[in-house]
This record gives sequence, C-alpha cells and structure tokens, in this order.
Amino acid sequence: MINLKVLKKGMVMKLDGAITYFSIFMRWIFISVIIGLITGIIGIIFQRSVAWANEFRIAHSFLIYCLPIGGLFIILFYRLCKIDPKTGTNLIINSIRSDCKIPSLLAPLIFFGTVVTHLLGGSAGREGAALQLGGTIGSQISRFLHLDAKVGNIVVICGMSGVFSALFGTPVTAVFFAMEVISVGVIYYAAFVPSILSALTAYEISLLLGGKTEQFHLLTVPNITASIVCKVILFASLCGGISIVFCTAMHKTDHLFQQVLHNDYLRILTGGLLITLLTVVLNTEDYNGAGVSVIERAIGGIAKPDAFFWKILFTAVTIGAGFKGGEIVPAFFIGATFGCSVGKILGIDPGFAAALGLIAVFCGSVNCLFTSIVLSVEMFGSEGLILFAIASGVSYMLSGNYGLYSSQKILYSKLKAEFVNLNAK
Amino acid sequence: MINLKVLKKGMVMKLDGAITYFSIFMRWIFISVIIGLITGIIGIIFQRSVAWANEFRIAHSFLIYCLPIGGLFIILFYRLCKIDPKTGTNLIINSIRSDCKIPSLLAPLIFFGTVVTHLLGGSAGREGAALQLGGTIGSQISRFLHLDAKVGNIVVICGMSGVFSALFGTPVTAVFFAMEVISVGVIYYAAFVPSILSALTAYEISLLLGGKTEQFHLLTVPNITASIVCKVILFASLCGGISIVFCTAMHKTDHLFQQVLHNDYLRILTGGLLITLLTVVLNTEDYNGAGVSVIERAIGGIAKPDAFFWKILFTAVTIGAGFKGGEIVPAFFIGATFGCSVGKILGIDPGFAAALGLIAVFCGSVNCLFTSIVLSVEMFGSEGLILFAIASGVSYMLSGNYGLYSSQKILYSKLKAEFVNLNAK
Repeated sequence: MINLKVLKKGMVMKLDGAITYFSIFMRWIFISVIIGLITGIIGIIFQRSVAWANEFRIAHSFLIYCLPIGGLFIILFYRLCKIDPKTGTNLIINSIRSDCKIPSLLAPLIFFGTVVTHLLGGSAGREGAALQLGGTIGSQISRFLHLDAKVGNIVVICGMSGVFSALFGTPVTAVFFAMEVISVGVIYYAAFVPSILSALTAYEISLLLGGKTEQFHLLTVPNITASIVCKVILFASLCGGISIVFCTAMHKTDHLFQQVLHNDYLRILTGGLLITLLTVVLNTEDYNGAGVSVIERAIGGIAKPDAFFWKILFTAVTIGAGFKGGEIVPAFFIGATFGCSVGKILGIDPGFAAALGLIAVFCGSVNCLFTSIVLSVEMFGSEGLILFAIASGVSYMLSGNYGLYSSQKILYSKLKAEFVNLNAK
Repeated sequence: MINLKVLKKGMVMKLDGAITYFSIFMRWIFISVIIGLITGIIGIIFQRSVAWANEFRIAHSFLIYCLPIGGLFIILFYRLCKIDPKTGTNLIINSIRSDCKIPSLLAPLIFFGTVVTHLLGGSAGREGAALQLGGTIGSQISRFLHLDAKVGNIVVICGMSGVFSALFGTPVTAVFFAMEVISVGVIYYAAFVPSILSALTAYEISLLLGGKTEQFHLLTVPNITASIVCKVILFASLCGGISIVFCTAMHKTDHLFQQVLHNDYLRILTGGLLITLLTVVLNTEDYNGAGVSVIERAIGGIAKPDAFFWKILFTAVTIGAGFKGGEIVPAFFIGATFGCSVGKILGIDPGFAAALGLIAVFCGSVNCLFTSIVLSVEMFGSEGLILFAIASGVSYMLSGNYGLYSSQKILYSKLKAEFVNLNAK
C-alpha cells in the first residue's frame, strides 16, 4: 500500500512538472508570436527606410555635403530626449546581464539616426541598430507585462532576434546572434524556442510586406583537398588579423575623437566633414551607406584591393564621430572585399574567398562562432559548410579577446578549457 | 621620450601576445592532425567492422541464437581486463570535467563488445562506442605528451570528434557533439579549431579507406506556412515526450536488471535470451543491430506504426543487460519511425516527418541543440533549416532534464535564463 502511495505521489509530481513545462511553453508561444508581429512590422519599416535612404542618396549625390549638418540633428534629438548620444548596442548587451533599464526613446532615436546616417552617406550597417531597436521593444514589452528579470531577459533576446530577422531575412542566425553576442562560452538555451518563434513570425511578416532574404548563390565551392584546407586556414588567420585591426580602429578612433573634441556637436560635425572630404577625394560612393552592392560584386568575384582599408577608415570615423547604425554590414563588406582580393593571390576562387572572408571577419569581430556557421548556411547554403566552419573557427581563435562590443563578456578562454571572464577589448 | 618607451613596451607585449597565440595555434594544428590520422584509421576500421557484422548477421539469421553466449564473452573480457563492464560513455564525459583517468584497455573492449553485439543481433548504435573509442585514444595521447589537464581535455574532445567523424561522415556535427554533450549551456570553444581539424582529417582518411557520408536526399521539404509551423511544433512536442520515454526506459531497465540480477553474467545472459525470444516472437530482424535500413525506409516514407515502441524495448534490454554500442542510432531509428507514422496523421509529408523526428528525438535525448541543427544540415541539406531548428528547440525544451547520459551536466535552465547545474536524469 505504501509503495502504491509513493508511486501515486511520484506520478502526481511528474504530472505537475509536465503541466509546468507545458504552460510555460504555451505562454512563450503566445508572447513570442506577439513580439514577432511587433518587431516584424517595425523591422520591415526600418529595413525599407534604410533601403530607401541608400537608393535616394545614390540618386542624389549632393547629399554627402549635408552629412555634417545631419549629424548635428542626430545629436540634437538625442539631447532633446535626454539620452546620451553614446548609448548603443553595449547598453542592450549590459541590460541582459544586469538590471540596467533601456530607455524607450532609444528606439525612435536609433531609427532616425541610422536613416539619416545612411541617407547622407555615413558608412554604417543596420544590424547593430536592429539589436537596439529590438532590444528596446523587448524591454518595453517585458516592463508592460511585469515579467521578472530572468524571463524579461528572454523577452529582450526575442525582440533583438525579431528585428534582426525581419531586417536581414535570416531567422536562425538572428536567434543565435542575439543569444551568443551577450557572453562568449555561455548560452541561455532557454531563449531559443521563444526567439525562434519571434524571429520566424517577424520574418514572415517582413516577407508579406515586401522584405527579402539575404541569400547569395556561390558559383564555385571548392572540393575539399589538403591544399584548399591549408589555404583556408592561412586565409582565415589573415581574416582574424583584419578583425583585430577593424575592432582596434573602431575603438581607437572613438577614443581619439573623445579626447580631442569634447563637444558632441563639434565631434559629429568634424566626423561628417572628414567623410565628405574623403568621399570627394576618393571620388567614389563605394564606402558610403551600407555598401551592399559592393558586397554583392565581391561575392561575384570583383573587388578593389584597397576597398577593405577604406571601409575600415570610413566606418571608424562615421561611428566614432557619433553617427548611428551598426558595424556588422561594414564587417561583411571588409571581409568580402579583403577575401576577394587575397583569394586571388592565395589561389582560392575569388567569389568563394569573398564569402569566406565575410563570414570569418564577422566571426572574428563579434566572437560568435555558432552564429557565423549558421549565417554561412543561411546565406550561402550547406555545400561549403566544412570550409566555412574552419574559417570561422580559425578567425575566432586568432582574433583573441578583441571584439566590436566592449560590453561582451568572454567567459571561456579561446586557448584552453578555462574560465576567464574578460570583457572584449 | 617616456611615451615612446611606453609605446615600445606596449608593442613588444602585443607582439608577445601574437606569438603566443600563433605558437599555440601551430601546436594545435600539428597535434590535431596526428589525432585525426589515428582516429580516422581506427574509426574506419570500426565502421567497416560494425557494417560487416550487420551484413553477416542479416545473411546468417541463426546468429541471434548465439546472442546470450556472446554476451558472456563480453563480460568475461571486461573482467579479464579488470574493467567494470558498466564503464561507458559517462566515464568519458566525467573525465573531461574531473581528473578521473580513462583506462587504455577500454578502447579494444568497446570495439570488441560493439561488434559482437551487432554481429549477434543486439539492438544498439555505434556513436556512443565512437565517443568511448575516441575519448580513450585522446586520453592516451594526452598522457603520452604529458599535457596539463586543461589542454588534455581538448585532446580528449579531439579524439571523440575524430572517431565520430570517421564513423559517421559528418565532421562538423562530430565536433559540436563532442563539445556540447559534456555540459549543456557552457561550451569550451577553445576546443573548436583542434577538433574540427581532427574531425576533418579523420573524415578524409575514412573516405580514402572506403567510408561514406550519411546523407539523405529529402524528396519533399514543405514551404513555411503558419499551418506547417503549428504542425511541426505539435509534432516536436510529441518527440520531446518520446525522448523522455526513451531515456526513462533506458535508465529504468538498467536499474531493474541491476536490482533483480546482481551477477553480470546472469544479467547479460537473461538480456540476450529476452532479445532472442522477442526476435523470434515478432518474426522480424528490424530491431536487431543498428537498423540503418529501417531508418532509410522511414525517410523514404515507409514505417510500421509500432516500430518505435519495439526499438525502445529492444535497445533498453540490450544496453541495460550489459551489451555494448551506442544509443544514438537507436534514437535516430525511434525518431524516424515515429515521425513517419505520426506525420501521416498530422498531415506532414511522412518522409520529411521522419527526418524531423530523427533530429528532434536525438535532440531531446542528448540535449545538444546546436549539434542537432548542424546534424540536420549535414544529413539533409539547408533547405529545411528553419523547421529543423524549431523541431529541435521544442523537443529540447519539452524533454526537460531527461537525458541518455547521467553524467551530462545541465548548467542552465531550459525555461529561464538561470544557472541550475543539474545532472541529466
């Protein structure tokens, strides 16, 4: 009899456990679809706005002369909203680890700032902005629903995944990026199901409203031989180095601007003038805006050998001076153009090397290894998986503790099975 | 002048850092290629032996009557080598987290035990055995090279990846599995580059020696619609449940055998007799050995509705009684046959549902989310990525803290962004 009672008690406990899991699961389906709907709509509006800004700028090349003035407006609006213009992706990353609040006005500010930057020819991406937009939306929803911090963090990750996914059309990458960028070596897998549902909903909404997937068709994927593997390892080592140069350039330019020019307005004005001057001197618009067409050309096998250098300079000045946008599409640009040029020298098909470079420089700059591998599959299909995985791994390892986001924690060493807990530098 | 000195000192330090990274990197290339060579040769010999054992058994169906006697020899050899017959994958997983030693004789024993189990019709996989073989080889190399524990662990992971990769032909999955199976939520990324180089070398060696990649061509990949996503979520929830049933059956059968029959020889003899009896009564050889042909048929859209149930029973009895082999191909079998049958009811293409079920039950049973997603890409290509990711995520979440390997640590909760540190149950 006692055994039967124990058995009954055990079964009731198991049933309770199953009901807990199932109710949490159903709640997440509900919340994440709502987040997906909101972030999908905002994400596609943002994506269309940035695309329009780039197209309009290309059709009206005089706009580059307005960049310094546009910059002043960006700072003005941040100041009017009482938000420090330096607030950015680092705050979103920090908010997931600590209790610091994300101000709701950050969403319209980063939206406006990024569109102005792209419209007037600053060199920047959109994905960092997507993380800020999505993170802010997630944080507002979490506050509205009075969720506790451990659940609220997942809602913030859902928001980040949602906007990234709507903007870029790669839902699985969006989820892993939002999960992996916070801390290297520890993954909150609990966020996966909510995030993938948000990301997928947002992606489908974006497709309905005219969005598209960033996919490239690779003309050549080399067969795996000892020779190509050695070349890819050598090439990825160089990409790791380029990631370090890119991250260092971003941080040093930022510090230099802050040290030399204490006033925000003066800083963005100077930066804007520098970009305008550089554009006029180089007599090309390749390095203004997102530069997606240059990336496409590189993956097609055509790139200028010095393009990666200029993109590093343009982006470092643009973001360092206080303009808005992300660093990820620039990282793609740098990797793809570098890869295309160096691929030719190393005897790797230039188009394939551009794809490899895009993934490897992204990986070295953001320290997100899974994300990079999934990104390669979503962008380029599964055929080159092994070579993309090697390139990501080597660039990840050799880029050391450098990273675009100084709030990112590197919890486990890249060289040993050891807990280190460093900030990316 | 002082500034120049500081600058010089800084540059020297940076150069030192770069040299450290580069020399560690070069050392890893060297070690991991050696490990890849050794594990590749042993892995392909193992793969060919198990394949031969399965073919030979199919051609000589009387062999099933020898299973009980074969079991006695397995126990005898373990006893002669003074190794507890219960030693298995859990020891390998533990050895990476603690200082416990892996005995070198485990490698020939698991090799012999698995081949005998497959030859005589026990129901088991090969991948668990691959982890043990590879882990033991890695551990011996680490001891031979007098490496410290934090580096030695990576060598063990390299060995596991190498044999798994040679055996199964999926190098990227092999690496993530070896990295992810140890602890859920924390990943030693430092192991990635060494492991991928070992896995790739082993894979190439295996191809040279007649190995092949486990790849399936999916006839139908559904377009993403709200309806298919809902069906996949429901289906994956069921797969999570099946994973719990499978893990519980494995553990409970093991305990029951131990409680009722204290003697190892008697236990394996009884288990062998049970399997023989079941085979004769059911009058089919579908559930003996690895059952790869049944998996292939399921992915082709054909499976018996009760096949998954019998495979759970056969595998639980085989492994619980003390026969050798892995639990992963059985998990594939269970997921694929379950998926094929339930897919028809839910209105998902049966072949595609079999593929989804294979991945989802694997994910729920081993709690390796990223591995499952990469496995889906390496086995089935990138076309169904989003649906595979959803299925893996849902099964991962709803399978709770159950798992095939009781030494696996679940460090982060599946429901919240929270550190929990539990053993899989």
